Amino acid sequence: MPPAVPEAPAAPAARATPEAPGDGAEAADILRRTRAVVDPELRAALETLPGPMRRVALYHFGWQEADGRQASGGAGKALRPALVLAAAAALGGPAARGGAVRAAVAVELVHNFTLLHDDVMDRDASRRHRPTAWTVFGDADAILAGDALLALALRLLAEDPHPASAAAAARLADCVVELCAGQHADTSLERRGPADVGLAEVLAMAEAKTGALIGCACAVGALYAGASARDVEALDAFGREAGLAFQLIDDVIGIWGDPSRTGKPAGADLAARKKSLPVVAALASGTPAAAELAALYETPYDKEDLNGTALAVERAGGRDWAQTEAADRMARAVQALSRAIPEPESAEGLLALAEFVTRRST
Amino acid sequence: MPPAVPEAPAAPAARATPEAPGDGAEAADILRRTRAVVDPELRAALETLPGPMRRVALYHFGWQEADGRQASGGAGKALRPALVLAAAAALGGPAARGGAVRAAVAVELVHNFTLLHDDVMDRDASRRHRPTAWTVFGDADAILAGDALLALALRLLAEDPHPASAAAAARLADCVVELCAGQHADTSLERRGPADVGLAEVLAMAEAKTGALIGCACAVGALYAGASARDVEALDAFGREAGLAFQLIDDVIGIWGDPSRTGKPAGADLAARKKSLPVVAALASGTPAAAELAALYETPYDKEDLNGTALAVERAGGRDWAQTEAADRMARAVQALSRAIPEPESAEGLLALAEFVTRRST
Repeated sequence: MPPAVPEAPAAPAARATPEAPGDGAEAADILRRTRAVVDPELRAALETLPGPMRRVALYHFGWQEADGRQASGGAGKALRPALVLAAAAALGGPAARGGAVRAAVAVELVHNFTLLHDDVMDRDASRRHRPTAWTVFGDADAILAGDALLALALRLLAEDPHPASAAAAARLADCVVELCAGQHADTSLERRGPADVGLAEVLAMAEAKTGALIGCACAVGALYAGASARDVEALDAFGREAGLAFQLIDDVIGIWGDPSRTGKPAGADLAARKKSLPVVAALASGTPAAAELAALYETPYDKEDLNGTALAVERAGGRDWAQTEAADRMARAVQALSRAIPEPESAEGLLALAEFVTRRST
Repeated sequence: MPPAVPEAPAAPAARATPEAPGDGAEAADILRRTRAVVDPELRAALETLPGPMRRVALYHFGWQEADGRQASGGAGKALRPALVLAAAAALGGPAARGGAVRAAVAVELVHNFTLLHDDVMDRDASRRHRPTAWTVFGDADAILAGDALLALALRLLAEDPHPASAAAAARLADCVVELCAGQHADTSLERRGPADVGLAEVLAMAEAKTGALIGCACAVGALYAGASARDVEALDAFGREAGLAFQLIDDVIGIWGDPSRTGKPAGADLAARKKSLPVVAALASGTPAAAELAALYETPYDKEDLNGTALAVERAGGRDWAQTEAADRMARAVQALSRAIPEPESAEGLLALAEFVTRRST
């Protein structure tokens, strides 16, 4: 199966284009090293939770089965904590990276708070190849576990004596509000008919829902490196654009991805009539395939239609648009990064992570 | 209707007993003055929220109708922010009180975060004489508005340059986790049969669900006054015990209260078969009335039974127990307070507030 990578943009983002060498080994190594330092702190933080919340959290992170037996992980990629640490290292060296571990854990806790709550609201039944927490423990326990993870994240920062911790907490809390706005926009978009959803608002929703926290992760890392306000904002912009690229590719995978890799049934997003980015771009294309897709989206899901629906998105240009837009966002991300970190070797880790998440194969 | 006040305990809590003079005018005055300084900051904080969350929050606080028209308030008693300010004043004088307004707003935001989420989980349809937010805006928007209020609370503290803000944020975040545990215990108790619920665990649940935040409010005020760790803990203990007294009286009101004052239908707690403190005490009494009550609680609610159910709780001693226990808790609260604040005149405001909430008439 071909990799779902963006087409090469006519942009200066040499490292971000798919022809750039690199098989993701560097990113995989960074993610592995991130888990090695983040997991012990993360688990120690979760251990402080009262029993019922701990049980749901450990299940959600893939460390426990629903009955409390040990499970073998699957706690996600740890992309956001890796970005915190990579940003700290890029701007402040190994010492800054070492000092930012607690902040990295806080960002990962916030990410997982949103997953727990979003799954309740969206009635999503599957996450990381397992039944979602609310399907196992009920809505109330999943909401409470999410609340507890958010509180835990901000407690970690409040207790962190690092001079940047208060600024990081303010930024992270602000980001949570933006994530909520993004999730609200998402649920409200999903309630509307396919003709009533514009591409600009779906892009804005994706920026709030996905870009904001990835940007915040990078900005928090910069804060922990003692970076200037200008550099913190540049890192935020880098993360936001890379996050949007990530979401675009994620949406492509949500339609054409391999269920054994995505952890979701094939074509789940189409079956749920989700107005993901490639779908909305296709609907807005004014092509005959767009009209066909709109008609399909007006009717409930029929298993027979799945391939036809995916084909309509593709023929209406949704797939190409998403891949080109992802490449464009990556180019902007690289540009923002170079404002704060002109030396390519210092930016390597961050670029490797950004490339990695936008190069995942379908 | 007689006031639902505790019987006089054989305890040193002279000020906390119902015979003590005072008609609540002092507390009402403190609450009014609290609203005057807290409301502008609270509204300014809510104005920073993105539109959809702001709309739900302003509705929940009673400042807007569902359609956005201005409403005339009903934002609750502001007990918790009043306790923050009263504790700061008691231990640090007027300057400490003035510096603690933002912390008072943060505590009030956390309280309202729990109300929004708890109403979703408990499917409560009415709050402060109005339909609850989830019944008006749906579950997702109520959950998101709650999330946003929690984040806003901790952002306010993270941005507060006061030297106590980080310690207060850590304490408040920790309290949120305890509130979640309390809410979990509550929902899990409600799912069990009346015979399977013990008095000790219902008291522990009430302490986590209600006492914890009232204690935290007092402790945060003490932190903002620069109090010693010992005094901060004493203030926490004062608030916890007073909070439990408050919950006991609130549960009495939930059975025998006047709907026009409680904002809930008459006997709502009995109709919902809620295992409130007087009910569990009655069930545990081993009296014939207890068996009668257990039988009633095993069957679904019948309008005709309402007076009979209330009478069974009373005959089984549930009402008397709750009032005596409330008086006992108030005595302990006063004792804890006197450890930190031996001078009666300094403790006046806190005592007036504690008395006020446990003296509300049925």
